[in-house]
Amino acid sequence: MNAPLTLILVRHGQSEWNEKNLFTGWVDVDLTEKGRAEAVRAGELLREAGLAPDILYTSRLTRAIDTANIALKTAGRGWIDVKRDWRLNERHYGALQGKDKAQIRDEFGEEQFMTWRRSYDTPPPQLADDSEWSQVNDPRYAGLGDELPRTECLKDVLERLLPYWESDISQDLRAGKTVLVAAHGNSLRALVKHLDGISDDDISSLNIPTGIPLVYKLDAETLQPVEPAAYLDPEAAAAGAAAVASQGEKK
Amino acid sequence: MNAPLTLILVRHGQSEWNEKNLFTGWVDVDLTEKGRAEAVRAGELLREAGLAPDILYTSRLTRAIDTANIALKTAGRGWIDVKRDWRLNERHYGALQGKDKAQIRDEFGEEQFMTWRRSYDTPPPQLADDSEWSQVNDPRYAGLGDELPRTECLKDVLERLLPYWESDISQDLRAGKTVLVAAHGNSLRALVKHLDGISDDDISSLNIPTGIPLVYKLDAETLQPVEPAAYLDPEAAAAGAAAVASQGEKK
Repeated sequence: MNAPLTLILVRHGQSEWNEKNLFTGWVDVDLTEKGRAEAVRAGELLREAGLAPDILYTSRLTRAIDTANIALKTAGRGWIDVKRDWRLNERHYGALQGKDKAQIRDEFGEEQFMTWRRSYDTPPPQLADDSEWSQVNDPRYAGLGDELPRTECLKDVLERLLPYWESDISQDLRAGKTVLVAAHGNSLRALVKHLDGISDDDISSLNIPTGIPLVYKLDAETLQPVEPAAYLDPEAAAAGAAAVASQGEKK
Repeated sequence: MNAPLTLILVRHGQSEWNEKNLFTGWVDVDLTEKGRAEAVRAGELLREAGLAPDILYTSRLTRAIDTANIALKTAGRGWIDVKRDWRLNERHYGALQGKDKAQIRDEFGEEQFMTWRRSYDTPPPQLADDSEWSQVNDPRYAGLGDELPRTECLKDVLERLLPYWESDISQDLRAGKTVLVAAHGNSLRALVKHLDGISDDDISSLNIPTGIPLVYKLDAETLQPVEPAAYLDPEAAAAGAAAVASQGEKK
């Protein structure tokens, strides 16, 4: 039997719009100072655990790219190969992008709010192409053509992510590389759903904390987990997941 | 006739060992605060010139990687594709790595010092594998085997760089991508020698300043320059090149 393969997932640290409690999606906002500190901590956790990524995957969004750059530099692995792809981007939040979470909750009510945030297959309304938060003129997506989303539910994210998982990330894992994926709350939830076989219903209550590496050991043949995935700092991860779950609540 | 292709070269900003006047070569030292500021300036120059790299090439050395990360983020292009390769590394300085430039000049005399620094085909003595400055156990070069250099002259750099220029960088240029190469004094001198057809003798007096993008417009068929390459800040470039030329002199 071949040794298990190592896949490490990390969600970017706090962004400027996390801090402001706005729906972000594909809007390209920066990390906050706290977010950069979370990225440093992620790198320290990798180093302390003796984990040495051979290749980095990121989305096309600055907050994930910066998180990875900071974490890998901290871990002494800033020189590894890099691949970026829009298929690792955050869920496109449609017309909610740029809107205040608490305000949407007040305006549309708890049930609609939670449906948009957590329903597996109900996307928010589409974002208009002339919105200031649209990506139709963003050069990083110039090659996408009709594939450019105007809104997405988690199911849509999984469907655009899986082909890339199969074509690229899986291949590097099978080649024996330790893979680090730096991405977003919902692109990582989609990947975790796939890897752990989580049902469409149960995925709604799964939250991924920011800045804490989640380590999978995968069977070399099937790419199925050989043991439950583990956060490198389980206590901080539990607290972080609870904080994500409470987003949009009044403070 | 097809439009010319755009190739942008940038030498990393000041490193900790540039500041200390030590031979660096393949030793992986960080940028100084000044070096990071130079990288920001490089990004501003790209943005002001309306240059939008589509793909980044770097060496495996932190000072080039950080220069590129900072410059591209400043220019709003941190999300582009990235390729890294040891063939873009600085010249391996052999047994001189870690040594003080002024001290080597005093110990071995001006002529020997200049031969080691600037001769096209005379490498310094080899670096011993048990030296603290050796890369034989560096994981980033684990795949190199017998190709790992113990010393290099500029001719050696050109010979290991050209295959990568042909196989990768040229291909992205021919595909119409604007290419940014973030690398080192000598790997960039080797590339400039090739592109501009500079003789083995004349290359010794060519110095590349740090942190100032050098822009080539290349013929789409031949990849030969259609006009002389131009620095984005010519005055600063001239001053920077003069500063490089005077390294190792007593202060």
